[in-house]
Amino acid sequence: MKLATLNNQTPDGQLVAVSADGKHFLPVDGPVTNLLAALEDWPSVQPSLTKAFDRLASGEGQTLVASDCAAPMPRSWQWLDGSAFSTHGDLMQIAFGLDPIDSDRPLMYQGVSDKFFGPTEDVTLPSTEHGIDFEGEFGVIVDHVPMGTSAEDAMAHIKLIVQINDWSLRAIAPIEMKTGFGWVQAKPACSMAPFAVTPDELGEGWKNGRVCLDLEIDWNGNRFGAANGAAMDFGFHELVAHAALTRDLVAGTIIGSGTVSNPNYAEVGSSCISEVRAIEMIRDKGPATTTFMSFGDNIRMEGRGVDGSSPFGVIDQKVVKA
Amino acid sequence: MKLATLNNQTPDGQLVAVSADGKHFLPVDGPVTNLLAALEDWPSVQPSLTKAFDRLASGEGQTLVASDCAAPMPRSWQWLDGSAFSTHGDLMQIAFGLDPIDSDRPLMYQGVSDKFFGPTEDVTLPSTEHGIDFEGEFGVIVDHVPMGTSAEDAMAHIKLIVQINDWSLRAIAPIEMKTGFGWVQAKPACSMAPFAVTPDELGEGWKNGRVCLDLEIDWNGNRFGAANGAAMDFGFHELVAHAALTRDLVAGTIIGSGTVSNPNYAEVGSSCISEVRAIEMIRDKGPATTTFMSFGDNIRMEGRGVDGSSPFGVIDQKVVKA
Repeated sequence: MKLATLNNQTPDGQLVAVSADGKHFLPVDGPVTNLLAALEDWPSVQPSLTKAFDRLASGEGQTLVASDCAAPMPRSWQWLDGSAFSTHGDLMQIAFGLDPIDSDRPLMYQGVSDKFFGPTEDVTLPSTEHGIDFEGEFGVIVDHVPMGTSAEDAMAHIKLIVQINDWSLRAIAPIEMKTGFGWVQAKPACSMAPFAVTPDELGEGWKNGRVCLDLEIDWNGNRFGAANGAAMDFGFHELVAHAALTRDLVAGTIIGSGTVSNPNYAEVGSSCISEVRAIEMIRDKGPATTTFMSFGDNIRMEGRGVDGSSPFGVIDQKVVKA
Repeated sequence: MKLATLNNQTPDGQLVAVSADGKHFLPVDGPVTNLLAALEDWPSVQPSLTKAFDRLASGEGQTLVASDCAAPMPRSWQWLDGSAFSTHGDLMQIAFGLDPIDSDRPLMYQGVSDKFFGPTEDVTLPSTEHGIDFEGEFGVIVDHVPMGTSAEDAMAHIKLIVQINDWSLRAIAPIEMKTGFGWVQAKPACSMAPFAVTPDELGEGWKNGRVCLDLEIDWNGNRFGAANGAAMDFGFHELVAHAALTRDLVAGTIIGSGTVSNPNYAEVGSSCISEVRAIEMIRDKGPATTTFMSFGDNIRMEGRGVDGSSPFGVIDQKVVKA
């Protein structure tokens, strides 16, 4: 199942069922009209969804326009972002001039969840002096997860998979990190690709709680990276269990993978600028040469299905001055 | 104005106006029936509130029962907790065995906001091995704060003041701090005292963006501390501006002071166990002797008005095994 949310002047938008090729949609009938509410009672929404998908499969549906799409979940009660690719983590500490992180546990912080930018919406930020960077990630959305749920049991709570750009401000990040309190100013609102999909929709692209797909990233029209999501040190089910150790996870909680990153970055590229800067620092034994984003820059991100498809659709947006 | 939220089997509860002495209430009529929604359109809710308070002042109202009260805001889109008392910060680094934090900026992390325990509700946690601790704080609730708002302008966005117990798990806290990512497992859901009050309600107790009241804390019936909230290194308006540098603050955002702590802790006591343990370590040049909470322990917290009143009401609850 593929779902999207259309802008309709309400904070949570209008939930719609989307055809497998992402070209057509039908509103989801019934009392639940947005994805956050749907996650609160997922089984009861299934008949309405099934009905809509059956109609789509029989050729019904309206044409989907990318610019009508909000984030599939425009706001949620909780956004917990992991950092499960150790290649990324190792490079970021070099970029930040910090010691390696000594931890055998999943890394995770809580970020702003009351706003996710839609896939083509302009992203407003106050200053390029903050070191504006993108971070290409995958994420999952869970239903209610009781405190203490095991990683094994967490798998069944993963209802949807999404693709995220976790906007990051690199000039602030190491300052906040050094306090041990994590990031507030360094992590403004994220963006989401238009489609949230059920795990089965990815076929062989969903294995061991990992999204085993390339995440193609283009910055101002130039290919920047196509790292694969399979390389997570911890699967999403393990991230969910980590998050749920001492709290119930509210239905609609979004959990991120952290920046997709592969050890063979020389071949596949990277999913954020800061990582490339660290690679330059290592290679050149000197300062990085790639600069962060300028206002007006475009970023495009597209997870690529094993069959060449585009399961999440495309993030394609500009960063502009607030 | 003094507001409370009654449990009514909905996630956001029923907003009620409360008499100045905290003994009587009246439901707030009109389309907005919960505090989170009220913060989204604060001016338009004022007539309904004024009407209810006028009726309360004329002797109307039902008797308020503490156990019927939820947290004044049982859930919100965002909870950002500061650590604005440097005495607390200095002692905590000793308790955690970490170096002093070198920062002249406000310290802040984002915590779980989808659940705030009510003032008399049992607090469920999984294990005493996590080092269960209370943290007595004050907090503010803001309406929508645009990105980039100055500290001066932030003052007008502070609509309500609340009293919070920020439950903390001390065995996990330093492990998470060392990663630089901040706390997830170490910070389960908080509790709130029953009443949210407008700043004017505190009279001389609200000065320079600080709640200048003693926070009386009793653990299992024994006085533990009565530190004063005036000692914040940064006022709440400065914490709001710090949080809003790179994000809009959604209406209903709650911002905490961090654990209330005074330099003369030998006289006034402390607002969390971990601080007392650090004081013991310094005094005895050896290990701390006070242990963390056991299941069944009671914690009582009451901010005390300059006139001896109880503006926020009382947190009085037990911690129990989940």
